[in-house]
Amino acid sequence: MQSDQGSQLSDDGTVYVGKKNVMSYVMAVVTQLNNGASDVKVKARGRSISRAVDVTQIVKNRFISNLKFSDIKLETEELQNEDGSTSRVSSITITMAK
Amino acid sequence: MQSDQGSQLSDDGTVYVGKKNVMSYVMAVVTQLNNGASDVKVKARGRSISRAVDVTQIVKNRFISNLKFSDIKLETEELQNEDGSTSRVSSITITMAK
Repeated sequence: MQSDQGSQLSDDGTVYVGKKNVMSYVMAVVTQLNNGASDVKVKARGRSISRAVDVTQIVKNRFISNLKFSDIKLETEELQNEDGSTSRVSSITITMAK
Repeated sequence: MQSDQGSQLSDDGTVYVGKKNVMSYVMAVVTQLNNGASDVKVKARGRSISRAVDVTQIVKNRFISNLKFSDIKLETEELQNEDGSTSRVSSITITMAK
């Protein structure tokens, strides 16, 4: 059901923002909200955090003007490197609802 | 009084995160909170948004473990270009308190 929205959409309805064009993430969020989802989470790590914020602003400014930001979470995640060491990376999770 | 914390600190106590080393912004935030400020705002635009989140995570993980994020605001700002046109850029303002 959700696979036609592209690989940026996880099973739990979270849109993971990476290095694709910003509009592909915008469309994933707009599609979910217009298909009746009560809220949508947008999540990104590291350098992609700026793009995740861009996604939320484009959704609000161009598509869903009554968009509400119900929760914004900033965290630190530990990632395992190939050599077994770990790196810390910042993450943002933005929850939006109509 | 505040000028010795460097140019990233504005008169109203907001730390504007730009292209400097992340630790200079971390130190500006830690200094303010340890000097009795009830809260500190960290603000950034565009590509610097990711660095602003890094700043908040380093302050919390290494310096002030009881740090609270009391408000996180995402906005769109309009900037005037030299040719008179305007560009939109995303911004983040993170308010932290001990």
